[in-house]
Amino acid sequence: MSRLLRLAVCQYEPGQDLAANRTACRATLEEAARAGAQLALLPELSLLPYFCAVQDPRHFDLAETIPGPGTDFLAEAAKSLGLVIVGTLFERRAAGLYHNTAVVLERDGSLAGCYRKLHVPQEPGYEEKYYFTPGSAGCTPIDTSCGRLGVLVCWDQWFPEAARLQTLAEAELLLYPSAIGWDPDEQEAERNRQLEAWITVQRGHAIANCLPLAAGNRIGRQARPGGSCLFWGSSFISGPQGELLARASETREAVILAELEPGRSEQLRRTWPFLRDRRVDAYQDLVLRDTVHDPG
Amino acid sequence: MSRLLRLAVCQYEPGQDLAANRTACRATLEEAARAGAQLALLPELSLLPYFCAVQDPRHFDLAETIPGPGTDFLAEAAKSLGLVIVGTLFERRAAGLYHNTAVVLERDGSLAGCYRKLHVPQEPGYEEKYYFTPGSAGCTPIDTSCGRLGVLVCWDQWFPEAARLQTLAEAELLLYPSAIGWDPDEQEAERNRQLEAWITVQRGHAIANCLPLAAGNRIGRQARPGGSCLFWGSSFISGPQGELLARASETREAVILAELEPGRSEQLRRTWPFLRDRRVDAYQDLVLRDTVHDPG
Repeated sequence: MSRLLRLAVCQYEPGQDLAANRTACRATLEEAARAGAQLALLPELSLLPYFCAVQDPRHFDLAETIPGPGTDFLAEAAKSLGLVIVGTLFERRAAGLYHNTAVVLERDGSLAGCYRKLHVPQEPGYEEKYYFTPGSAGCTPIDTSCGRLGVLVCWDQWFPEAARLQTLAEAELLLYPSAIGWDPDEQEAERNRQLEAWITVQRGHAIANCLPLAAGNRIGRQARPGGSCLFWGSSFISGPQGELLARASETREAVILAELEPGRSEQLRRTWPFLRDRRVDAYQDLVLRDTVHDPG
Repeated sequence: MSRLLRLAVCQYEPGQDLAANRTACRATLEEAARAGAQLALLPELSLLPYFCAVQDPRHFDLAETIPGPGTDFLAEAAKSLGLVIVGTLFERRAAGLYHNTAVVLERDGSLAGCYRKLHVPQEPGYEEKYYFTPGSAGCTPIDTSCGRLGVLVCWDQWFPEAARLQTLAEAELLLYPSAIGWDPDEQEAERNRQLEAWITVQRGHAIANCLPLAAGNRIGRQARPGGSCLFWGSSFISGPQGELLARASETREAVILAELEPGRSEQLRRTWPFLRDRRVDAYQDLVLRDTVHDPG
């Protein structure tokens, strides 16, 4: 990122009508371009309904190759609007091998790179381990004309490890396409705690790594057995000190914008040199899932 | 933590007068006990001026053994007030070997355990690498009658790695004795970003680990060459979803309180099972400080 970067985050409702999803996606990208954005972040599974609310083998028919129709659609938008675009697709890599894959389209329509979601959730209404094989290529930033993008996907956003790995690999900006919401039957106080936790933990990643960060989320309701999920919108852009630069509503389609200053992260890291002081000699247990320790 | 835990955080101004520091510390501990607290968290270097503002070999005379006069003083308070107490001392472990060491006193006056500050800062006004040898024993919780305490110290609070290590070792509560402040000549907007970043990154650790968390900070001004540091107070207690339960002022002595619910962390981790989904197979670069990667 060598000059002021104008970042847009597109929030819309991808539903059951695949053609309508493309129309909604394209409309927000056009709005971003009109507003002078150079980079646009889309919600997770940018062109699809949130089919993971149930485990249904027929839904694997929604998957596609990369490159394929989804990247073709986004590449055309990237080229005609002059935008770098970040979204995710349901990737069919081989028969029986599917991923939730972030794709980054350069403004000339070329595919700048991919990232396969590393942390995959599984709970009622978010049956993602059924559909998505977790990525194994780690967290590597993707170089673009808008800088070195640390792209992660939704559930990754709860893991400080993922943000740190992108940082150590010299990401300049953390981007999270997302699909997260409430149980609308949950009590309001708990719903608010969940939403604020989602924003705060990501602002924490921005701070700990001195990097700007954005999350693009879906809106709208997705039925699931016994209830529904209401995607909570609230897409946001944080500066590298965790300061909120823009935040969308919980319910409405939106394009939010912020200008990111080149060199700000390095300036901050000279004031608060966290990366200098990491104690890698003491971090061995971070790469273990189960340890034997003496509770006494 | 098997029952409701009443936690107090003591905020006061330790200055050049060592006897007055003990008086201020004891007064806030008495207030905590009167308020029914079972556990009290003190600021960093709980009984000393912030001598690290300059590099002066005479200041090593302030160091003491553990156990020693500092633990004797805190042990007497712990026993007479019936409190578990967490603070830090300037430890002399051997000639020429000094640490910034957290001590935990059980309510019977015994020493429950120690933790030597792992991440040590060094910048103008915070000349800690000159004084403190970093701990090498890692991040291990300390068992007490108030639960399994994940004690970390100040600069540690910017490192998600430290909070995660305590979590993986089954800490039930994260506690950060702190000594952090502003340059009072800094612009107000920047001062506010720094303070909010300090609170937010720690709330992020609470969320990522589903643990309650508290930070106890100093107040008052410490001169340093060419200026001063104004400790910003703002001690706080966060719940395991990052929700602020209590927050002290920036300038005044205070004892803040919160009640922590046993079992809440486990309940949260069943809803958002982050620990289940850590991708330890992809975390190898976290234990490297420098990696070779191909920037192209």
